[in-house]
Parts: sequence; C-alpha cells; structure tokens
Amino acid sequence: MINQLIDKIKQTKAPIVVGLDPMLSYIPEHIRQKAFGELGETLEGAAEAIWLFNKEIVDHTSDLIPAVKPQIAMYEQFGIPGLITFKRTVDYCRKKGLVVIGDIKRGDIGSTSAAYADGHLGKVTIGSNTYAPFDEDFVTVNPYLGSDGVDPFIKVCKEENKGLFILVKTSNPSSGEFQDRIVDGRPLYEWVGEKVAEWGQCHMGNDYSNIGAVVGATYPKMGKVLRSIMPKTYILVPGYGAQGGQGKDLVHFFNEDGLGAIVNSSRGIIAAYQQKTYQQYGAEHFAEASRAAVCDMVKDIQGALEARHDE
Amino acid sequence: MINQLIDKIKQTKAPIVVGLDPMLSYIPEHIRQKAFGELGETLEGAAEAIWLFNKEIVDHTSDLIPAVKPQIAMYEQFGIPGLITFKRTVDYCRKKGLVVIGDIKRGDIGSTSAAYADGHLGKVTIGSNTYAPFDEDFVTVNPYLGSDGVDPFIKVCKEENKGLFILVKTSNPSSGEFQDRIVDGRPLYEWVGEKVAEWGQCHMGNDYSNIGAVVGATYPKMGKVLRSIMPKTYILVPGYGAQGGQGKDLVHFFNEDGLGAIVNSSRGIIAAYQQKTYQQYGAEHFAEASRAAVCDMVKDIQGALEARHDE
Repeated sequence: MINQLIDKIKQTKAPIVVGLDPMLSYIPEHIRQKAFGELGETLEGAAEAIWLFNKEIVDHTSDLIPAVKPQIAMYEQFGIPGLITFKRTVDYCRKKGLVVIGDIKRGDIGSTSAAYADGHLGKVTIGSNTYAPFDEDFVTVNPYLGSDGVDPFIKVCKEENKGLFILVKTSNPSSGEFQDRIVDGRPLYEWVGEKVAEWGQCHMGNDYSNIGAVVGATYPKMGKVLRSIMPKTYILVPGYGAQGGQGKDLVHFFNEDGLGAIVNSSRGIIAAYQQKTYQQYGAEHFAEASRAAVCDMVKDIQGALEARHDE
Repeated sequence: MINQLIDKIKQTKAPIVVGLDPMLSYIPEHIRQKAFGELGETLEGAAEAIWLFNKEIVDHTSDLIPAVKPQIAMYEQFGIPGLITFKRTVDYCRKKGLVVIGDIKRGDIGSTSAAYADGHLGKVTIGSNTYAPFDEDFVTVNPYLGSDGVDPFIKVCKEENKGLFILVKTSNPSSGEFQDRIVDGRPLYEWVGEKVAEWGQCHMGNDYSNIGAVVGATYPKMGKVLRSIMPKTYILVPGYGAQGGQGKDLVHFFNEDGLGAIVNSSRGIIAAYQQKTYQQYGAEHFAEASRAAVCDMVKDIQGALEARHDE
C-alpha cells in the first residue's frame, strides 16, 4: 500500500493529504439548508450535510491529490448516522482512486486491537462469509500500550497489503507532557520512533515501509531527528496551516529523494472559503476555494523542497 | 457520576464490572442460529447475535452488579450494524439502572477529543436541536497526547456530570515497553498517575473524583504504588480472571474504606459456560453460568478484602 501511495504522490507531485475533518461550522449555509430541509435538524441531517460537503470537495480536488484522511471523531460525534457518512466517504474516495488514511488513533490490548484491525483494515468472518467493514487503506494507531497493542494491526496490514501511521510526536501544544519526557537521555518520542522503525522492517514496500509514523508539523526540529532515526518510515505530518506549520518548516521531514513525508491539511483546505485569502470564491463555490488552497499548499511545499538545495 | 457508581457498588456489595466484549466464538450455537436464521450470515446477523447474547447476560446479572463495560472494538469490528448493537447495549444497560463505562480508549488533539467527548458523553447541537449520540456514563481515555487531549473530555464530564477512566498502566504483557520507562527516576506510568490525580481535582464527587484511572490487575505491585499516588482516584482494574489476575492480587488497588477500585472481568463472566468450572450449565443456560461466575468473582474479591485485615 505504501508503494501505491508513493506512486500517487509522484504522479500528482503533491506530497499532501486532505484532512476530511468537517465541523458543521465549516459547511456552507446552502448545503446545511439542503440537508436539513430533507432530513431535519437531526443526526441524519448533519450526516447528510457532511456527506454533501465532502463529496463536493473530493470532486474538486481528487485529480490533484494522492490521499485523504477522514478524522473519524468528526463523524462519530454524530452517532450512527455520522459513522455511515464516514463509511460512505471512505468508499467514495477509494472509488475515486484516492488512498484513504482513516485517522482513528485506535490502540488497545492484543485481542481488542485485533478487532479494530479487522474492522478497519481487514475482514471479519461470519459463518461462511467474510466482510471488510470499514476498509480504509491506512489507519493511525496509538502506541501507548506497546508492541502487543500494535502487532495485531501489523499482522492485518501484512495479510491485506495495507499500512499504518503510528503516533510518535503529535502536533498539539501539550504533546510534550509525556512524549518529550527524557528516558535514558533521550525523549520518549525518539524511543517510540525507534520502535516504529523496527516494527516497519517486517512489512516493507519497495523503498519505504508500510508502517509509517505521525510527527506534527509544529515540531520541525524533532521532525529532523526523527527523520534520521526512521529513514525508511513514511511520516504523516499533521499541523500544517491552521495549526501553524509552514512549507519551510517541513523540509526536514522529507528525505533527499523528495519522498518520505506526506503533509496533512484539514481546515486550511476544506474551510478555505472562510479564510481571507480565498473569500472571493464565496460560500457557494467553497469547493473551488478548496482546490485553490490545495494548489497553494503544493506550491508552498514544493517550493520549500526545491529551495533547500539552493541553500 | 462517581457518586452514583459508588452508591451502586455499596448497594450490590460488588466492586466489579462486567465487560461486555463479545466475540462470535463466545456466543452459543442456538443464539447464532437464531440471529443468522433471521438476518443471514451478515454483519447484521452478527450484530443481532451479539445483541441477543448481551441482553440475556444483562438480564441474568443486572441485579448483582453496579456496572458494565462494553468494549467498542468488539462492536466496531462489525461495522455500522455492530455499532448499532453497541448503542442498543448502552441504552439497555442504562435502562436497567447499570452504570455504563464505554471502553473506547479515545484520545486526540483538542478539537478532535472534543468531538469524541461530545459524541460519547455529551451532546451535539444541530440547528436548534441537541442530541446525545452514544451517551455512556464513563469512557476510557488514552493520555499519550497530554492535557489538551484530555481536557475536552473533562470539560464535557463537568457539564454532564459524567466521568473518565484514563489509561495509566494497562494489563497487557508489553504495556511496560513505554509505560515503564524511567523518567526522572520514576516510571512513566507514575507520572501519568500523578497527572490523573491532578486532573481529577477539578471534577470531584463526594469522596472520589469523577476522573478515574485504568491500572491492570496483572501488575499488583504497581497498583499499590499508584493507589497511594492517586488516593482520590477510582481505579478501573482490567485483567481479572482470563488475563491472570486474582482477588488476592487486587486488595492493594482498594483503599481502607473498601472503595477506590472496580474490577473488570469480561471473558471470565460472559463466556463462563465455556469454562470447566461452569460447564454443567451448558450452552443453553450460558447466562446462568455468567450469573454464577459473577457471584464467585464477588466472593473472591470480598474474601480477599476481608482477609487483608486478618493478616
């Protein structure tokens, strides 16, 4: 699956992923009205509004990008109807040829992690039938429970040719509270990074492992160290744009081959029309604003990557 | 909510929680046949089998126990139909007067944790309506992202009078990989425990905080230390029975008042009829086997608690 992701990154020349993390406040009035008009101000209505919003953004950006990352929390908050829209979004994006990274941050003890892995990446067997319930291509995983919480995900990834991004250093301000604590002279996130590199060896693609890492854009110096600790690990980098990261901060997440990292932007893309830079599109043309924001983001990152060789 | 949980523990004299973590292999043939006969060997059929199984166990044990802990992974693995059964189980148990601990182990950056918190413990607003999508009483939370990943859960708990159990030291064999690493002379889980005690101060019940901790039964010595670090924290103790913990190992998780801990058993209760000790009940009477296993577990723990004062 990492080979497929890299192929798509090369083809689009866009090492980026669009975070489909819709809040109701991002969704233009005309879409909300349409959904609520049909289904009322209900969980079903909210889920429909999110679906219409997502679909239009995907339709306007899918030729430019390799991947999307739906954040399941934004769907789960609307209960069962929300999760139906999550699944519908996953299916639609895969049908459009996009790689889908389910941002689920699951992680539990062995048998429970196995259930999550089967449900999101693999298959469940019911009598003589098998089903792939959510069927994302990658998911994000929380490593706090250690190897036996992560191994069941890796097992399913090997069976199904799928992949993971394991949390190493997250983008939020208080990520350092535990992740930065010094263990034997080095911060905990480096030890987690080493473990991710080790886990990754057992499920390699051609040049990179199918087992990736999450390292926040907001911590570029740590990104540089982690890049060298995990040379074969693809790094998913959240925190670009709205959370404060910029293209020039991100060059050290990439290897010299221009690969090795994929940068996520959520609000910066999907709610672009609410920003000053893109307000001329108006709410009616929100998805065109998203397309413009994708182009600008790709330009910013590509520009920064080219500039590093001029320094 | 912790007051309510403690009242129910006192009333039932049972500091235990039944883990509703059904695997299809735990479900007796006659239940599976009934569900598959109606709905086929489908996700819907599996979800129905789990529902029938859960309901019968709850009906046979709810007068003896204060709480249940459905593990969402076991439902999520069957996709949307599985999650519908999760919700149905939560609602049914609450209607029966049980406290429901949603074992969801979520945790993310601020805005995303807020979405999980709203969806599982709080409410979402859609236009002029509000809904409580999953509406558990407590949920489990992963602390790896630090305070700003946990605070949104606490905020909702305060608004809704609900509670959390935050992972401190998990019951699985490799939990030590990161949790036991030494930071400033003490294992990481102790630092997490201190933080949980601190978080707990801002949402106290009468004698204990609404913000609890998860500490595995499989690590009784660590439980003793954590008990003293977090004197006002209720400890949810998984790993009893099938994972290896026994009543006598658990006394140090309790305070001198006989309170302060609630011990979970999942497979040991819900699949009791598959064990030698309870096989005389047979698959037809699986829920009576579960009832007997509950009684034995309560006796084991109460006996151990009484015996500690004789030592």
